[in-house]
Amino acid sequence: MRKLIHAKDIDYLALGATVLGTGGGGDPYIGALMAKQAIEQYGPVELISIDELADDDLVIPSAMMGAPTVMVEKMPGGDEPVKAFKQLEKFLGRTAAATVCIEAGGLNSTIPFVVAAELGIPIVDADGMGRAFPEIPMTALHFGGISATPMMVADEKGNTVLLSTVNGAWTEALSRNATIVMGGSSMLALYGANAQDMQPNLIHGTLSTAMKIGQLLANKEDASKRLENLLKFMDGVELFRGKLTDVMRRTLDGFARGTVTIEGTSGNTGSVCRLEFQNENLIAMRDGEPIATVPDLITVLDLETVHPITTEELRYGQRVIVIAMPCAPVWHRPECLELVGPRYFGYDLDFKPLRPLVTNV
Amino acid sequence: MRKLIHAKDIDYLALGATVLGTGGGGDPYIGALMAKQAIEQYGPVELISIDELADDDLVIPSAMMGAPTVMVEKMPGGDEPVKAFKQLEKFLGRTAAATVCIEAGGLNSTIPFVVAAELGIPIVDADGMGRAFPEIPMTALHFGGISATPMMVADEKGNTVLLSTVNGAWTEALSRNATIVMGGSSMLALYGANAQDMQPNLIHGTLSTAMKIGQLLANKEDASKRLENLLKFMDGVELFRGKLTDVMRRTLDGFARGTVTIEGTSGNTGSVCRLEFQNENLIAMRDGEPIATVPDLITVLDLETVHPITTEELRYGQRVIVIAMPCAPVWHRPECLELVGPRYFGYDLDFKPLRPLVTNV
Repeated sequence: MRKLIHAKDIDYLALGATVLGTGGGGDPYIGALMAKQAIEQYGPVELISIDELADDDLVIPSAMMGAPTVMVEKMPGGDEPVKAFKQLEKFLGRTAAATVCIEAGGLNSTIPFVVAAELGIPIVDADGMGRAFPEIPMTALHFGGISATPMMVADEKGNTVLLSTVNGAWTEALSRNATIVMGGSSMLALYGANAQDMQPNLIHGTLSTAMKIGQLLANKEDASKRLENLLKFMDGVELFRGKLTDVMRRTLDGFARGTVTIEGTSGNTGSVCRLEFQNENLIAMRDGEPIATVPDLITVLDLETVHPITTEELRYGQRVIVIAMPCAPVWHRPECLELVGPRYFGYDLDFKPLRPLVTNV
Repeated sequence: MRKLIHAKDIDYLALGATVLGTGGGGDPYIGALMAKQAIEQYGPVELISIDELADDDLVIPSAMMGAPTVMVEKMPGGDEPVKAFKQLEKFLGRTAAATVCIEAGGLNSTIPFVVAAELGIPIVDADGMGRAFPEIPMTALHFGGISATPMMVADEKGNTVLLSTVNGAWTEALSRNATIVMGGSSMLALYGANAQDMQPNLIHGTLSTAMKIGQLLANKEDASKRLENLLKFMDGVELFRGKLTDVMRRTLDGFARGTVTIEGTSGNTGSVCRLEFQNENLIAMRDGEPIATVPDLITVLDLETVHPITTEELRYGQRVIVIAMPCAPVWHRPECLELVGPRYFGYDLDFKPLRPLVTNV
């Protein structure tokens, strides 16, 4: 499987990845703009399966870190993703054969295309989460024993921080803090590993899935048909529809956190849906009862367009549909839920899967 | 000039460097202990003039960063200084011919001996300040155009952060923050440069001076004679003597800050001396009037022993003598005073030199 990704594909990708990004994963417009500019300048990017790489080919993921709130005001210059990437290559004394996305989200699904286009390397059709999560160790790579460090953190001013840490918690703490000092957002190169070590620890096909979602949502059918297609394709469910009556948000410790209140309309009149987010939507409650929880995907769609709304874009008065989609099977593992389940984020709830797994993982 | 430094010399060095450290520069007992252990294990350390190195010999300073308050409780394991040093060597792809002190202070004058002893390299008889200052760019090296980065920051757990920055303010912000995240103190290797570039930007003879001061203060003469010898040797003055009646301290942004009140005795009865410190003593006021200001050296001595008291050790009830000594001439430059003068630290005062310079610098 080899496919060339052109600038026009990026809009589908960013749209679909924002659905997978569960409200987080960065601003899709900035990411798409940067990726399209890079592709127009350097040519289309090859999308490959990781199986097409040699076992000892080096793959380095590329990503952005920071609160989307800040990212909107501090659009990175075109060079930072490449700079962080090349600095890490220099430190490792090796050249990457490909790049890959750490998470599926509007920004972090598109940023690696900037690197791939400029350096003329392919991008692997996969990601490390199958969704977006707020912290660096929340990847299948981490649970597969691949270290996020040596990790390069770069800002738009020319500062770089190279981390080497003893565990994921220190990686998260040191990189998050450096990012805050750098002004709230930074570019990363991290989790570099050989293809054979990375292969079993990725969520495969994520970029194809995102582009397919983008196409489903962008076609000319009416909204209800597009929603139906999306839910069918993703095995998802509609949780709630209504009017957004309150958003309480605060940027804390480098994260955009908040609570959203949605008053029901249509079949939900008289009910209230409350969403909790930390960059990404984490918990959906209906009249005080949890109806979907992290790590399952919770995404807010605009009622008219059925396009996803990031947590950053949520505003009073929006008419929305809240949907949920099952997460990648890896997240059902008890050791993974310790780091990405509701309790990790401070909620006194267990993960109640939307779709129980039928096979052991 | 080549001299072997044995474990017994380290006590003189730590004692004298604490006088030069103006109340800061770290805990002399921890530093001396580490240096003596390293010398006993690996043998004496050669003290050399930088002129004995080849022009293109690499010199890497070694230091500790953090609030002394924290340092006292978190004594570094013996390996961290060497680890930070060797990691920086590895990154540079070069081996250092010698190390040197960034500042004169109880800890940072002795830590480089751990590195020198274990690696079997000499230590240059010099430092970057001629005293202690609280921030990374406050060195003659910085004003000589030598970059503090690439800079290695290491903790006792095994985490390392390699910084590369666009200027000194970013170096300070990023390393200070990493140090805070690491628990309040860290080991550094920084300001690496060739001997010929470093030579014009060091304060020469600092370690010999510190050892001489240590010997003057440790001999058997009575206290007043030893004080007289110290002031004569350092061209210093006694500012005040009295009883310490209050210390207000707080650890803020990784610095130990505070205000000390001393009520006059002897010839000072009825007067009050107030000291302001940020790791180091910065300002001495007598009855509301400044009598000595940073960058001149302000040191508090115990009235009985005439030994220096660090800002960390200041306690209610101590009988003390406050002395001032002239700083290295480099600090009189206007561009240097912008970074190390009273106004930088937030005081509405100009630097009033204890000894005006008789020649241009």
